[in-house]
Amino acid sequence: MSSIYHGRLTVSIFGQSHAPGIGVTVDGLPAGETVDLEDLQAFLARRAPGGNAWSTPRKEGDLPEFLSGLADGKTCGAPLAAVIRNTNTRSKDYSNLKDVPRPGHADYTAQMKYGGFQDVAGGGHFSGRLTASLCIAGGICKQILARRGIFVGAHIAAIGGIPDTPFDPVNVDKETLLAPGGKLFPVTDDRAGERMQEAIAAARADLDSLGGAIECAVIGLPVGLGDPMLDGMENRIARLIFAIPAVKGVEFGAGFQVANLRGSQNNDPFYMDGDRVKTRTNHAGGILGGITNGMPLVFRAAVKPTPSIGQEQDSVSLSRREDTKLVIHGRHDPCIVPRAVPCVEAAAAIAVYDALLEQERER
Amino acid sequence: MSSIYHGRLTVSIFGQSHAPGIGVTVDGLPAGETVDLEDLQAFLARRAPGGNAWSTPRKEGDLPEFLSGLADGKTCGAPLAAVIRNTNTRSKDYSNLKDVPRPGHADYTAQMKYGGFQDVAGGGHFSGRLTASLCIAGGICKQILARRGIFVGAHIAAIGGIPDTPFDPVNVDKETLLAPGGKLFPVTDDRAGERMQEAIAAARADLDSLGGAIECAVIGLPVGLGDPMLDGMENRIARLIFAIPAVKGVEFGAGFQVANLRGSQNNDPFYMDGDRVKTRTNHAGGILGGITNGMPLVFRAAVKPTPSIGQEQDSVSLSRREDTKLVIHGRHDPCIVPRAVPCVEAAAAIAVYDALLEQERER
Amino acid sequence: MSSIYHGRLTVSIFGQSHAPGIGVTVDGLPAGETVDLEDLQAFLARRAPGGNAWSTPRKEGDLPEFLSGLADGKTCGAPLAAVIRNTNTRSKDYSNLKDVPRPGHADYTAQMKYGGFQDVAGGGHFSGRLTASLCIAGGICKQILARRGIFVGAHIAAIGGIPDTPFDPVNVDKETLLAPGGKLFPVTDDRAGERMQEAIAAARADLDSLGGAIECAVIGLPVGLGDPMLDGMENRIARLIFAIPAVKGVEFGAGFQVANLRGSQNNDPFYMDGDRVKTRTNHAGGILGGITNGMPLVFRAAVKPTPSIGQEQDSVSLSRREDTKLVIHGRHDPCIVPRAVPCVEAAAAIAVYDALLEQERER
Amino acid sequence: MSSIYHGRLTVSIFGQSHAPGIGVTVDGLPAGETVDLEDLQAFLARRAPGGNAWSTPRKEGDLPEFLSGLADGKTCGAPLAAVIRNTNTRSKDYSNLKDVPRPGHADYTAQMKYGGFQDVAGGGHFSGRLTASLCIAGGICKQILARRGIFVGAHIAAIGGIPDTPFDPVNVDKETLLAPGGKLFPVTDDRAGERMQEAIAAARADLDSLGGAIECAVIGLPVGLGDPMLDGMENRIARLIFAIPAVKGVEFGAGFQVANLRGSQNNDPFYMDGDRVKTRTNHAGGILGGITNGMPLVFRAAVKPTPSIGQEQDSVSLSRREDTKLVIHGRHDPCIVPRAVPCVEAAAAIAVYDALLEQERER
Repeated sequence: MSSIYHGRLTVSIFGQSHAPGIGVTVDGLPAGETVDLEDLQAFLARRAPGGNAWSTPRKEGDLPEFLSGLADGKTCGAPLAAVIRNTNTRSKDYSNLKDVPRPGHADYTAQMKYGGFQDVAGGGHFSGRLTASLCIAGGICKQILARRGIFVGAHIAAIGGIPDTPFDPVNVDKETLLAPGGKLFPVTDDRAGERMQEAIAAARADLDSLGGAIECAVIGLPVGLGDPMLDGMENRIARLIFAIPAVKGVEFGAGFQVANLRGSQNNDPFYMDGDRVKTRTNHAGGILGGITNGMPLVFRAAVKPTPSIGQEQDSVSLSRREDTKLVIHGRHDPCIVPRAVPCVEAAAAIAVYDALLEQERER
Repeated sequence: MSSIYHGRLTVSIFGQSHAPGIGVTVDGLPAGETVDLEDLQAFLARRAPGGNAWSTPRKEGDLPEFLSGLADGKTCGAPLAAVIRNTNTRSKDYSNLKDVPRPGHADYTAQMKYGGFQDVAGGGHFSGRLTASLCIAGGICKQILARRGIFVGAHIAAIGGIPDTPFDPVNVDKETLLAPGGKLFPVTDDRAGERMQEAIAAARADLDSLGGAIECAVIGLPVGLGDPMLDGMENRIARLIFAIPAVKGVEFGAGFQVANLRGSQNNDPFYMDGDRVKTRTNHAGGILGGITNGMPLVFRAAVKPTPSIGQEQDSVSLSRREDTKLVIHGRHDPCIVPRAVPCVEAAAAIAVYDALLEQERER
Repeated sequence: MSSIYHGRLTVSIFGQSHAPGIGVTVDGLPAGETVDLEDLQAFLARRAPGGNAWSTPRKEGDLPEFLSGLADGKTCGAPLAAVIRNTNTRSKDYSNLKDVPRPGHADYTAQMKYGGFQDVAGGGHFSGRLTASLCIAGGICKQILARRGIFVGAHIAAIGGIPDTPFDPVNVDKETLLAPGGKLFPVTDDRAGERMQEAIAAARADLDSLGGAIECAVIGLPVGLGDPMLDGMENRIARLIFAIPAVKGVEFGAGFQVANLRGSQNNDPFYMDGDRVKTRTNHAGGILGGITNGMPLVFRAAVKPTPSIGQEQDSVSLSRREDTKLVIHGRHDPCIVPRAVPCVEAAAAIAVYDALLEQERER
Repeated sequence: MSSIYHGRLTVSIFGQSHAPGIGVTVDGLPAGETVDLEDLQAFLARRAPGGNAWSTPRKEGDLPEFLSGLADGKTCGAPLAAVIRNTNTRSKDYSNLKDVPRPGHADYTAQMKYGGFQDVAGGGHFSGRLTASLCIAGGICKQILARRGIFVGAHIAAIGGIPDTPFDPVNVDKETLLAPGGKLFPVTDDRAGERMQEAIAAARADLDSLGGAIECAVIGLPVGLGDPMLDGMENRIARLIFAIPAVKGVEFGAGFQVANLRGSQNNDPFYMDGDRVKTRTNHAGGILGGITNGMPLVFRAAVKPTPSIGQEQDSVSLSRREDTKLVIHGRHDPCIVPRAVPCVEAAAAIAVYDALLEQERER
């Protein structure tokens, strides 16, 4: 098992960067849910590479075809399968990657694990391109959640050390939450966004790349989603978030800041807001005991700098067992953080909808 | 499904704080593995509350009984089941927790999820006591890993903002790795440890508590453990780490620091060390594409301050739908970070051994 | 993975015949369900060996203790764990079974699979005793189903070639369905039962044993339980039924008789019975496309003769690699079919309740 | 979850009869296994409808396209995805099936389960066409098994009450095992096959259909495949066999005949054949305690008559809540047993290879 999320929903991702196609199957979607293909396409477009300053000019044919699972535009109870054809396949020789692995990439570990049988072209199954499959599944979950008044939004929290204004973890509203997703450069504060883009341009000029962080929030959640211990919302989201190849950390609510806090500071006091139970702060990130408490679910993911950089790097020849130099050709995103924003939303949406399906049963 | 880790190993945790017992079943252990009960007991003792300055004087009867899975002290291929009896059960009335939930605890979310049928005594299934079950499973995995030359160690990375000296992510050796586990207060730098204990004492004096962070490393790993996307080592460890109730974040290698790094800084250059492929730095935390690269696997977990504090706190009455004050009686750990260190090791050991079992098949 | 049923419910069975205990964990039970321990005990008593003519005089201490999962006699949302202590353990030397395997038993296959580390005492994890664990889980499911108007009943369909009167697959009512379960010898037709008992006595006198078959029906089912293809009701029940060690076949509705039927005979015509859709016959056994159609769900299981017989048998010495003779000492059931009847009900109840939990979500 | 087999291999089937396509993903295949597409195509052709006397003249475009999972014709460690396009889609109006369900079909149960959102065209996800997906996965497993000296073969055991000569359960050799698969009408005894074909022709002339049974054997198995209780070979095969829509029963070895046998007859005596442990009879069907014993694994599946027959049948109008008559138009197989033979082989091959992957780990 490698590429399967297995809960009430089973999301199974397949494909390699230069295989005939990539795609996803989703088993467990209730029958009768509309899939708005136009809306889904717009969501996928946020992940697709554009011709802008921070992503590659490559053109991805990210139009998914639904092979099954729909009838008359609605889910029909059968497993949903969607495929995106790879149009740009096997265009060059990748065999050198089996000998001289790229630092920061999975070339070396794949070579050792699969004994040279792995598909190296374009990164194979390890390519960031596979997150398009995640976005198909997550985009559909987002649509279903939105019809239930649950909204998922994310923005760039930081790039190259430059922070964006975070969401208000207590009061973030739908408009603020979804605003970054409507922008070409998904930030809350466009001034910060401009500085980030300048930093990206500078890194690109140096044949280098930049890492960052993404903040995601989910609002409109009922109380009670998630389970104790192994299937809490943290566990579920974490498992899905780390499916995005570049993610190296995840934190909920106050996250690593809890290491500096006292209980009296970190505990979120309850109060009644009319008939609703709320908390005055939200260091818990909307999760207590693994279970949603009705406050915004807030988390952040750390995204490493694109490992493919134009500078000469140290590597080894696996066949000759000696040190060597490596220069990676081709064009690569100097910063994948902007394109990873919808992927983070997708991961969150799958985790949340999966938990919601469980709760609908329990009631 | 709530309390089950499901991979090659299936680890299933059960119990409530004041039920007759807690325990764990482990399905999938190969036959013929010795379980050293004395060693396991010593490991569990690291998690048990002691009479020291930073934990409660409660006495836990943490002697596990193995009901099945062993024959002549070795695993026999059948599921292993271990039980710890709860000796201190139902000693007082906990029903108030169903009405006035403790901030930072799962009282409110459990009440809403389980409709009042949840076991509230001592925190029920949400109690930190359940991590003893995790430690039984993890302790056995640690023993098996050690026989294969794979060692898991952890230490307090920080408490109350006071940092410990981190492991050297490139060169940490077995002695350094395991040293903190042999101490009553598991740190690398005892001077830092003393300052942490002073901070804990100060918080306790204020009827308050402290949060912190834990760093864990695994050395001796073969290349090739873990799978791409949903079953990478990050996904597996994250899923298990968040089973520890107080954990609010996890990061691998450089973790959230990647947001400040360029690719040229974050990429770990490969080089040959004799016939072995190594990396000069280890920002990847030993994981590339979800798969171990043979370098130390390094991660950190954020641990929130104990939510049970002696200070009066704001809460609500769920029955009367109005704000109220809450004072939690009884004695609680002013800082659970020291006791959480073996729990983190346990989570890592389960994830790593589970992946190792898979690799043994693949070869 | 070996002893786990994994659906909405996760039922995990552990134990060996002569280990300290056997038991079961059940994860996924909704909170608030009463567990009637007296009723459960009565159900387990149907499986327990008695001092009668067709079972061994061994005494099993089949009183389960619930370690967790209950609060005030009701499920509390946390995993339920129940244990039965083994009182009669390690009473004699079983090591010979590792060398001279008993025909029809798992001695040889276990020896080869587990390399001699398996627990051979009393059959270890392969003992029929483990079905007590299945009956605990199934007995609880039966209680919950009964509260929803769904009833599970079974009877001996045949022993030693002597048939019992089958249930009417179209019109079986609750009284008829549950009647056999109330008898010491669970048949529909007591005259047939007497002849079966005579046949058992004759086989016993010959130091031999008898096989048989069991018919089970479930009534009161809603339409719509089960899923197409891999998770149909047939798949689910089959997977659970074969957990009973002696079962060698399962058939639904007309079962193997379909090989002799034409479509015009086998198809069950629909008709309206008032406002309810029914079928005039029930060759489908209440299942169409894997999904319940509201008619009684009917299936039969084949149960092999007890392999432990008193006659001298041919076997081999695995150490000496030569043919040898084997005489099994001790007392064994000359026919386990009567005791297997509640086990079949338990398997059906788990499968049905698991599917019901899923449907409750879908509506 | 509905259409997923989840073990070491995860086989996930998708598609509807008249959707754009059907297909399968297989996760967990080791890297480096050759997939012989020509051999696979020949295997799929055995399932495809032909223009012969017992199947429909419909033409299925059963050429699978592999979207992922292969590199240079070998498995690459990434999930394999194969798709078959449906060429003959939405050719007519199927909406009547939502109102007047066909007896013996899933029309009624699907309508109730999915609330009218199910895809009814051509049977949707319940169509026998979906077994082509099963055959892709099973055909690949068969190839891999054959390279390890393990062979899977099946034949028609009976049609319309006419029996074929069964395999010798003790001594069946590779040639005999595979011979039926090489014939247009897969029987052991061609004379019996001719009589079956005459019976099919007679049923067809009566606008009727015939049921039957299929026998399958697997030879060359190592000792030790499968697990006790829930994951024995019987459980695994049963779960997969019932994925074939028409199967209503499965029995292993002596199967339901055990109800007529004594232990002294049913037990298979062990003996040494040179250095190999064998049994003189094989009533166990090669499985003891759920685990292979090295003898041929033998089972039979009951296949119901095609429910689509040309005769007028009784049904109901779900909208008008009244009895009505139904005549099914179009051409349907008067007997699907011949085409189901490779599907049974596929199910067995998946179950066996899945268990083999587990054993390879354990050694």
